Amino acid sequence: MGAPHTDAPGVLATQGTESAGVTGGSGFVLWFTGLSGAGKSTLAHALAPVLRERGCRVEVLDGDAVRTNLSKGLGFSREDRDTNILRIGFVANLLARNGVAVITAAISPYRAARDANRRLCEGDGSAFVEAYVAATVEECEARDVKGLYAEARAGQRIAFTGLDDPYEEPAAPELVIPSGRETPAASLGRILAYLEERGLIRPAHPCRDRSSPQSPRPEDSR
Amino acid sequence: MGAPHTDAPGVLATQGTESAGVTGGSGFVLWFTGLSGAGKSTLAHALAPVLRERGCRVEVLDGDAVRTNLSKGLGFSREDRDTNILRIGFVANLLARNGVAVITAAISPYRAARDANRRLCEGDGSAFVEAYVAATVEECEARDVKGLYAEARAGQRIAFTGLDDPYEEPAAPELVIPSGRETPAASLGRILAYLEERGLIRPAHPCRDRSSPQSPRPEDSR
Repeated sequence: MGAPHTDAPGVLATQGTESAGVTGGSGFVLWFTGLSGAGKSTLAHALAPVLRERGCRVEVLDGDAVRTNLSKGLGFSREDRDTNILRIGFVANLLARNGVAVITAAISPYRAARDANRRLCEGDGSAFVEAYVAATVEECEARDVKGLYAEARAGQRIAFTGLDDPYEEPAAPELVIPSGRETPAASLGRILAYLEERGLIRPAHPCRDRSSPQSPRPEDSR
Repeated sequence: MGAPHTDAPGVLATQGTESAGVTGGSGFVLWFTGLSGAGKSTLAHALAPVLRERGCRVEVLDGDAVRTNLSKGLGFSREDRDTNILRIGFVANLLARNGVAVITAAISPYRAARDANRRLCEGDGSAFVEAYVAATVEECEARDVKGLYAEARAGQRIAFTGLDDPYEEPAAPELVIPSGRETPAASLGRILAYLEERGLIRPAHPCRDRSSPQSPRPEDSR
């Protein structure tokens, strides 16, 4: 495997030193994927404090920050994009197998690289939850919070995912988040319900979970 | 700072979910530095199971493995070496601030990059222990386990640290390990004693610590 420590693979699962909020010996990876502007980072950064409130150790690996710290010099060819995504997966796996709840927010347009990260994490005993933030190009472009679509339309950005570069939808994501038709609070509620149902996080303490988003109504929770 | 999660810096220190063997809220980084062949990886991989036996979560970030997984494409110019070392520091810090005992084993020839990693880790509340594996070029070349010195002398490797590329000794390392004049078991004993004295790991249980190296005699322990 691609892991750097080769002396005792899997030994961590036996240590029983998980963080308080993550159930089981390992953490997990919640992997957001979707177009630029779909809402991945917004969801990731809104979710992080809620998971901390539940006692999880949390790291957010945001695509832009990771490009600065791990992948400076890489471009946007398929090969470079895949290298970037595999690096995020490598780091996410290191953290998850040490009990951290890792949230990634990168476009990660290619299915093969996402699937490789899933195999890496699951192979080390960590759950990998693929959350497809399924806003359409039209929805993302209409918001265009960072102005990137406008730059791409003006020819100032080439190989822009969704315009002149491919995005491969997940074949079987654990979660689909139609961010163009669902509020972030409702999406967070569904994500938390899913993580609870999978046994990856503990349910909220009824009196303590003050920072969680508005509780979803029953009909929203699946 | 270079950290990717910007929403709640330092929050982890308040969680009280440290691993069983690491004392305090955070882990630590034990940063081995020294020439190729000095014994950094040997010490790192010998130390890891001992720390696990003491209940620590442990990751070894070995220079060669990291170059494969995080730094493919980088060369051996000063800039590329520094980029590689800063990436290792970035990942080490992410792990350490989540309670992991991180052991790195990379030549890391430039003082400025090592010091930048120290600032990053200490800034996030993790101890940074620089361990200078101080074998001389002559001692490393005499062993030349991987045959790299022979290749460099034959002109097959350029910019080889200690021959035609600089190595900047640490100005004030926490530990100096004269691996040419000390057995690995004695070095391990001194490292463990230092980590205990700093309060970074718990002392060995007298009856359980069977995998630790031969106990150093008192005169070896500092």
